[in-house]
Amino acid sequence: MKNLVGACVFGQSGGPTSVINSSAAGVFLEALQQSNITAVYGAANGIKGILDEKFYDIGKEDKKELELLKYTPSSALGSVRYKLKSAETDDTDYKRILEVFQKYNVRYFFYNGGNDSMDTCNKVSKYLLAAGYDCNVIGVPKTIDNDLYGTDHCPGYASAAKYVATTMMELNLDAKVYDKPQVTVVEIMGRNAGWLTAAAALANHKGLGADLIYLPELPFDSEKFLLQVKSVMDKNNGKCIVAVSEGIKTSQGEYVAEALSKAEMAKDNFGHAQLGGLAVKLADLVGNKYGVKVRGIEFSLMQRCAAHLASKTDVEEAFRAGQEAVKAAVAGETDKMVVFEREMSSGRYACNFRLMDVAAAANTEKKVPLEWITEDGTMLGKEYIDYALPLIQGDCKAPLEDGLPRFAKLKKVLVK
Amino acid sequence: MKNLVGACVFGQSGGPTSVINSSAAGVFLEALQQSNITAVYGAANGIKGILDEKFYDIGKEDKKELELLKYTPSSALGSVRYKLKSAETDDTDYKRILEVFQKYNVRYFFYNGGNDSMDTCNKVSKYLLAAGYDCNVIGVPKTIDNDLYGTDHCPGYASAAKYVATTMMELNLDAKVYDKPQVTVVEIMGRNAGWLTAAAALANHKGLGADLIYLPELPFDSEKFLLQVKSVMDKNNGKCIVAVSEGIKTSQGEYVAEALSKAEMAKDNFGHAQLGGLAVKLADLVGNKYGVKVRGIEFSLMQRCAAHLASKTDVEEAFRAGQEAVKAAVAGETDKMVVFEREMSSGRYACNFRLMDVAAAANTEKKVPLEWITEDGTMLGKEYIDYALPLIQGDCKAPLEDGLPRFAKLKKVLVK
Repeated sequence: MKNLVGACVFGQSGGPTSVINSSAAGVFLEALQQSNITAVYGAANGIKGILDEKFYDIGKEDKKELELLKYTPSSALGSVRYKLKSAETDDTDYKRILEVFQKYNVRYFFYNGGNDSMDTCNKVSKYLLAAGYDCNVIGVPKTIDNDLYGTDHCPGYASAAKYVATTMMELNLDAKVYDKPQVTVVEIMGRNAGWLTAAAALANHKGLGADLIYLPELPFDSEKFLLQVKSVMDKNNGKCIVAVSEGIKTSQGEYVAEALSKAEMAKDNFGHAQLGGLAVKLADLVGNKYGVKVRGIEFSLMQRCAAHLASKTDVEEAFRAGQEAVKAAVAGETDKMVVFEREMSSGRYACNFRLMDVAAAANTEKKVPLEWITEDGTMLGKEYIDYALPLIQGDCKAPLEDGLPRFAKLKKVLVK
Repeated sequence: MKNLVGACVFGQSGGPTSVINSSAAGVFLEALQQSNITAVYGAANGIKGILDEKFYDIGKEDKKELELLKYTPSSALGSVRYKLKSAETDDTDYKRILEVFQKYNVRYFFYNGGNDSMDTCNKVSKYLLAAGYDCNVIGVPKTIDNDLYGTDHCPGYASAAKYVATTMMELNLDAKVYDKPQVTVVEIMGRNAGWLTAAAALANHKGLGADLIYLPELPFDSEKFLLQVKSVMDKNNGKCIVAVSEGIKTSQGEYVAEALSKAEMAKDNFGHAQLGGLAVKLADLVGNKYGVKVRGIEFSLMQRCAAHLASKTDVEEAFRAGQEAVKAAVAGETDKMVVFEREMSSGRYACNFRLMDVAAAANTEKKVPLEWITEDGTMLGKEYIDYALPLIQGDCKAPLEDGLPRFAKLKKVLVK
């Protein structure tokens, strides 16, 4: 544990969320107050900005705009998807990072992202340590996928979940409006973990959810799906609403969207598959089988950037995660990630902030526990509702200007 | 002008909106106060509920729930798409309506919808008049398309426009996050009139909009489109965001989505077109031409049911439209539609409520004035911003319960 004096660099990585900038605000506002931190830099496009020596001077920003970052979705500094090779294979990037850090006297490095980004933190901190360069590295978790190991939940998840639940409620009302059979299939993000799709069950908790929910945690069977849809339609005046994770796979481990394409190609004899996302494909499957009106809907980018529907709990925790990262680094911690620990006392939720070895989070995936899924595999149980409900509490969003959100406007002054 | 004593029936028709239930609340709460109105009925699924004699007794509902209708999207009574034949061709439906109205002593009929629904109002009121049955019929306008003739704007439009503008701002931030070329195409509702797609320009007004906006008011040329996208990408670090109306047509009057399918089929030699909406097709066109990352996004049903983003101005005007319809009918008016008249005094917007012959609104379409579109056909001018901005002011939404909207829950007690 070393107390260092020097500049800090913060970078954003991976897919943006509604609250990644809230963590940025936490890092920046805390770092600007720390006397050991001599300059606060934002790396343009994450690790790429370090390699390219492209830093924004956060000290030149208005404090009011930094505060507005809390309510501004996406990645204000720009993001990147870049996986560092292992230093043993190719140490070019690491040498360059060390060179840049030395040049700017960077003694604190904060990186905000999911498991790949935590891997980056871990590799960089290990390399710098081996090179004898003192620099405290702390990871700040972020992912709408909620799949990071070692933390009760991830910043970004709750706001996306609140979007999914609220929008499912609204769609539920819309999809039932005509006195005719109609099947609606909604596709929700999440390649390997079904946390975000599970959030559709929060809408069920309020009586306006999906009739069937399919997560990637369980294999998907198209024939069974068709029967389950039929069974709901029979009970429900011909109506059925399905929430499905983009990442569902067949029992052979193939993505269902791809499997359906292949089945179409085989039928077609000429090897043509129809375009269209999973929602449209599954909706068409139902439409062709039962001759009912169907609609496939994708929540697309909206589910990760709808900051107007952010959870206040999420925004505040994301901000705190940034602050805590800075405090820990200044106190001498390194090679760690900030994690959330849930405390429930007399039914009230509280979130405690702890540190964990960043290596433990790197490249791991936390999935929805199978025992939280009902026996027929189409719904979440009470365990999930109890888990998720405290996280989506509270409203908070950017102030309105002309009836529209006033997002942060950074000057982005480049460091010479 | 006759002052009548009897029951009233209210029905909802056509595609739902975020505020159609706000008009229902206006009709119900006003009608329940009128001493000339002896019973307040809600027709299940619009005109179909009248033909089927399926009425909900609104007098049995809790007033608190009727108030919550203001913030509840979709059609609480159920909607219908049903175009009455002309009475000269086939008067079966009309005889049935008269029979039902006589049986329940219905002396007031309010119908909420777009131009087809106003046609229904007109036909029913003409028939009842000819049959010598006294019943005052008033149309309450509603459509996210904003294409009704004779009214400054339509209830439902502003909330959908606010969704489009807010979401475009959020997507704008998300779509620019990586340091790589990316073209995003967003498809917005509106078959023949581009009002809702135009709302993307409100996001431009706040600096975070679409680079190119294509309305159905002008013919669409794919080659020109590709050049326009390229020109934006060249100026803009490879980024381009396009907002496009689902209803854009070629100069031959063919829907662009269909024309693109045919072009694919011709190329394919086997007559196969790829599925997928217009957004995906246009995005693929760009991706194939320029080899850049593309994404097609549909606002789908969300744009018409996202009540959590409703415009307060819209919610209140929709409510007033319902109230005014009842007041006018009780005062003896019939065969009319409530219209909105804009009043601007010292830069402040106000909305006045008037009546117009419903025949004038029936089956007509008001389009975006061509002079509001910039010369190259890809953007809206200041006239549109001045028109639309006052309409999207103010926030209002359902109270939260467990962090999620508490929508109205009607008992829907059937009238025996």
